[in-house]
Amino acid sequence: MSKFITMAHGNGGFAMQQLIQDYFVEAFANSILAQGEDQARIPLDFLAQQGEMLSFSTDSFVIDPIFFPGGDIGKLAVCGTANDVAVCGAIPQYLSCGFILEEGLPLAELKQIIQSMAQTAHEAGIQIVTGDTKIVQKGAVDKIFINTSGLGVIPKGIDWGIHQIQSGDKIIVSGTIGDHGATMLNLRENLGIQTALKSDCAVLYPLIARLRELDGVKAVRDATRGGVNAVLHEFAQAQQLGVTIDEQALPIRQEVRGICELLGLDALNFANEGKLVIVAAAEKTSEILTALRAHPLGENAAVIGEMTGDRKVRITGIFGQSRLLDLPTNEPLPRIC
Amino acid sequence: MSKFITMAHGNGGFAMQQLIQDYFVEAFANSILAQGEDQARIPLDFLAQQGEMLSFSTDSFVIDPIFFPGGDIGKLAVCGTANDVAVCGAIPQYLSCGFILEEGLPLAELKQIIQSMAQTAHEAGIQIVTGDTKIVQKGAVDKIFINTSGLGVIPKGIDWGIHQIQSGDKIIVSGTIGDHGATMLNLRENLGIQTALKSDCAVLYPLIARLRELDGVKAVRDATRGGVNAVLHEFAQAQQLGVTIDEQALPIRQEVRGICELLGLDALNFANEGKLVIVAAAEKTSEILTALRAHPLGENAAVIGEMTGDRKVRITGIFGQSRLLDLPTNEPLPRIC
Repeated sequence: MSKFITMAHGNGGFAMQQLIQDYFVEAFANSILAQGEDQARIPLDFLAQQGEMLSFSTDSFVIDPIFFPGGDIGKLAVCGTANDVAVCGAIPQYLSCGFILEEGLPLAELKQIIQSMAQTAHEAGIQIVTGDTKIVQKGAVDKIFINTSGLGVIPKGIDWGIHQIQSGDKIIVSGTIGDHGATMLNLRENLGIQTALKSDCAVLYPLIARLRELDGVKAVRDATRGGVNAVLHEFAQAQQLGVTIDEQALPIRQEVRGICELLGLDALNFANEGKLVIVAAAEKTSEILTALRAHPLGENAAVIGEMTGDRKVRITGIFGQSRLLDLPTNEPLPRIC
Repeated sequence: MSKFITMAHGNGGFAMQQLIQDYFVEAFANSILAQGEDQARIPLDFLAQQGEMLSFSTDSFVIDPIFFPGGDIGKLAVCGTANDVAVCGAIPQYLSCGFILEEGLPLAELKQIIQSMAQTAHEAGIQIVTGDTKIVQKGAVDKIFINTSGLGVIPKGIDWGIHQIQSGDKIIVSGTIGDHGATMLNLRENLGIQTALKSDCAVLYPLIARLRELDGVKAVRDATRGGVNAVLHEFAQAQQLGVTIDEQALPIRQEVRGICELLGLDALNFANEGKLVIVAAAEKTSEILTALRAHPLGENAAVIGEMTGDRKVRITGIFGQSRLLDLPTNEPLPRIC
């Protein structure tokens, strides 16, 4: 077998079958995948025992570079979709994966990415049950793109979503913001900042499981591309409301602050891959905050602001001055996920 | 708004929200997508009423060129995954879609592709309920790649699959073979053959629905990349059996035969996007064939061979000579789907 991906790995024939068997089926080992069919077959009564609604989500990953401090495109592809499935309160359980590979990709890199996916999924109790692999000629894709789609079940009685949001609700972030974006920026722009900073890439289900046991959670999103800022705007627009954020309350690592100051960027716009933004009923906020902080994934959780009635997204600075927080109109950080 | 995809369409901010709203949400209009959440929420009792098993499949589409006689990458992305969901007997009902777009892609082309997806899905009774869009800089992807993942329910009592296959079972194809591959080859290699030939790209569920009413269906696959030949090898390997195909029985259009002769290629290796390969109990074969032929998607259905016990995949020619039918080891037709 060649040490690199060749066009023959995508022809539906022998090399492709061998790649799928030796790389994917072996690493993702589970009884559904092992059936070797064109689709995963999942018992509906098993799902229906857990709740009333199926959660179904998809994400494609095009991050550059594909290996970075704290993770790689494989880990990211599992975490990203697992989190999108889970932020409605669902337990993420099944993933599909679709690989698009560039001719010439070293098989050793592919193997590392697959192992990373397998390990991340295994640790989170998620099975990768169906997949697809396409090979394109050199230059038609940059190394490797991965799509994952995921399934989970929302337990009975959980109805989180933007429709629940009201003026006066508090806004909580589950930890420091901008770690993933700042890590990628430092790596990619050769800023040369020596730092222990790494991507916060993580499956957030364990933290979400704690939230499910509490009252007062209204809406939850993971703040990925577009950062916390994009989520705040989504929350505001959905219910024709506004948001006020307290700049001093934002949990931001020193290294991330440094990178922001150096480049004149705002950590609120940086991608995260392991952080939740939670809208909570005001009277339940301290209970929710305590529960979050008791888990390693939420130890830096903080209340950062609240929903308001005036349809504006604002940030209040250290000296009490308030300014509008617009969405960026350009793209400061392409291929961040 | 620009007439082309820009990096700003991928930043999680305003341009991206506008693209999603004006292009995707409008075209795919349905109540689940309209909730505007990070995941689709699908009632499990609605699914459980229809059967016992969920069918879940994924496919990425990287076809080049993106528009071709008989379809485009959007139509293909709906048909391909709908068919993978359906070949186990399931009714395909929900799709996710993940777009990877190249900076500079004309928005008019994107719109045409989305409309094509919407129309194909609508005609097949499929809802596109969740999605994702990534933009990569010019040169990092060739125009547009689409992933779709799909869900459907397998009705009670249907258990099609490779585990059912036995020696002596008959092999049926649902129509002419190689149409999609030959169309793409003619287009791409500038063979200059003037022909009405077009891709057979179609949602096959209506044909599969007929099969569900009959006894004797053992296993069904759609013969896409790798052609009928790849499916035959999958069937043989799965049960340590063999296959014998009758060359004279193969339904192949004159134009496809011409292209094969011109290039020294075999239509059995050409991709199809609207053809089933069915393994059937011998005594039920004629009944199944009659049912297939009664539907426009199956009017050229034919019995092409049978499963044997000798672990070889063979083809018997016009003069009775038999030869081994190997899987191709190279890739004659990259980016065919």
